[in-house]
Amino acid sequence: MTVRTIKTVGEFGLINILKEGTIVTPETVRTGIGDDAAAYCPAPGSLQLLTTDMLVETIHFKRHYMTAWQLGYKSMAVNISDIAAMGGAPRHAVVSIAIPPQISVEYIQELYQGMKAICHRYGVNIIGGDTVSIPDYLAINVTLTGEVTPERIVLRSGAREGDKVIVTGMLGDAAAGLAWLDYGDWRKAGGAERISALVQAHLQPEPQVQIGQLAACFGATSMNDISDGLASEANEIAKASGVALCLQQEAVPVSPAVEMTAGFFNRDVLDYALFGGEDYQLVFTMPVANLTKLRAAHPELPLTVVGEVTGTGPAVYLLNRQGESQLLEPRGYNHFRG
Amino acid sequence: MTVRTIKTVGEFGLINILKEGTIVTPETVRTGIGDDAAAYCPAPGSLQLLTTDMLVETIHFKRHYMTAWQLGYKSMAVNISDIAAMGGAPRHAVVSIAIPPQISVEYIQELYQGMKAICHRYGVNIIGGDTVSIPDYLAINVTLTGEVTPERIVLRSGAREGDKVIVTGMLGDAAAGLAWLDYGDWRKAGGAERISALVQAHLQPEPQVQIGQLAACFGATSMNDISDGLASEANEIAKASGVALCLQQEAVPVSPAVEMTAGFFNRDVLDYALFGGEDYQLVFTMPVANLTKLRAAHPELPLTVVGEVTGTGPAVYLLNRQGESQLLEPRGYNHFRG
Repeated sequence: MTVRTIKTVGEFGLINILKEGTIVTPETVRTGIGDDAAAYCPAPGSLQLLTTDMLVETIHFKRHYMTAWQLGYKSMAVNISDIAAMGGAPRHAVVSIAIPPQISVEYIQELYQGMKAICHRYGVNIIGGDTVSIPDYLAINVTLTGEVTPERIVLRSGAREGDKVIVTGMLGDAAAGLAWLDYGDWRKAGGAERISALVQAHLQPEPQVQIGQLAACFGATSMNDISDGLASEANEIAKASGVALCLQQEAVPVSPAVEMTAGFFNRDVLDYALFGGEDYQLVFTMPVANLTKLRAAHPELPLTVVGEVTGTGPAVYLLNRQGESQLLEPRGYNHFRG
Repeated sequence: MTVRTIKTVGEFGLINILKEGTIVTPETVRTGIGDDAAAYCPAPGSLQLLTTDMLVETIHFKRHYMTAWQLGYKSMAVNISDIAAMGGAPRHAVVSIAIPPQISVEYIQELYQGMKAICHRYGVNIIGGDTVSIPDYLAINVTLTGEVTPERIVLRSGAREGDKVIVTGMLGDAAAGLAWLDYGDWRKAGGAERISALVQAHLQPEPQVQIGQLAACFGATSMNDISDGLASEANEIAKASGVALCLQQEAVPVSPAVEMTAGFFNRDVLDYALFGGEDYQLVFTMPVANLTKLRAAHPELPLTVVGEVTGTGPAVYLLNRQGESQLLEPRGYNHFRG
């Protein structure tokens, strides 16, 4: 028998293998493995969300790229983003930290300060955790609960033909920021101020809790947070909903700083905007009538229509300026294929 | 400024430093950092428990000591034990695994089989998780929710003068089992069958969910699971409750196999029974009248009175056969001082 490794089956392949038989009391589980967060019913009429994310040094972050405060902030932010992507409100967190021997207490304190800062902003209590030692590399695991009214929860699986596909904010900033961090001394490059904003987007992403809740209120039919790049997230929605999504290349919102970055590194701007990941913006689908109402009620929200749901799938198509269409593969960031 | 490290402040010292400012909405939190599990109120009249534990290869387990199935079983068992120690019922889990590149998918599958086996026994759904890569050592983080009726939750802080101190099962089995695993080829030693039971107690501990719930129903005033040894857990109860606990050395329940192990390795049997840890039995306090009722209703339960709450503290005293008393320090297993 050939031995399969994580590398050969990939992260999603592994998850599919593992998730079989995980639900023992289906009547209490609204959605299990396979969405941004899980949802369960602690009592009739009540729905709790639960999500967890682990960040491992060298794999998910380089310690010399960021302060401990930023690392703490980001560890919590990526979990809050998962709750936001369900239309929920983040509530209570437990934090496990595996600490290598050379790390100081001050470092861990500063990391916690970063977590507490974002927790205070979003009303999240850190109510428990585990601190353990580890030989080499720092690892942080945050688990976060959230709350959502049962009729408001937004899964990946509800996109319907005719819905618009909407994204929040700008895409590619975080990936472009990482490119500059990898490059090294970006402070000496031209346009350091704009680059600084990109680096900030990578190191200290802002979860879109408010927009997530508003999208849910205004009848979003599906939603994902953009952790692995729009291409990957759009494919997840397409797959879970059994629909085709058609995205307009020209409509993808990209900042001038990302365009500048693409020029500097001689890359396609879409490498950052579609495949970069770690933006923690949201992508959701919604009937156009609801979108009109949402925009009228909240004109301040940074929403961009990037395409629409065109029919049965699952598939995601990208249309370029010339009207040519190509299949958009979910080749976003995959931890195991790197 | 001298740099403090985890080694100098210890795990509990670090937790005390970190827990400041973690509660943002105190009206929703019944108990935060510092008990076996946290308890929060998702809705009036409802109480949810939340606990998390991380196991790191080389620190918490040696991969060649146990099968993947046992590792999965134990990873979940230690979390279920935390819920049991609050008088709760375990409900929903999320699992993060950091996987080094050399590990096979079959290994992870078997690990999940072990988790699913214990989850099926206790009605726990695995509803989410995160799978990431890590350079060297396997790390597993399980977060588990639980449910408890608000008036039944048992914290560490409720022990009162006159209460009896009760433990479940036998103590020291897991520590003695680890001694044999460290020793090596225990299968060739005399009494391999008895040793096998000890090794099993270490590799595949059984959480005491039913007794935890019954103790809560019959008015236990405080409770801990014995993960770090009875000395450590008793001191935690004494500290949280502000009482003195007086334990009878002779009363501590020890199996013949542990006595045999102590003889073989020329150790004091109390090294295993009081300071060994990882038994995942329960220690609780309860008025004697309630204990009488509990025993009458459930004579089958393996309960042993090991002492009583004698007054204000915090302190734990150990009385030997000669009636001599000594202060029992909480020198249980401490990951950072190890």
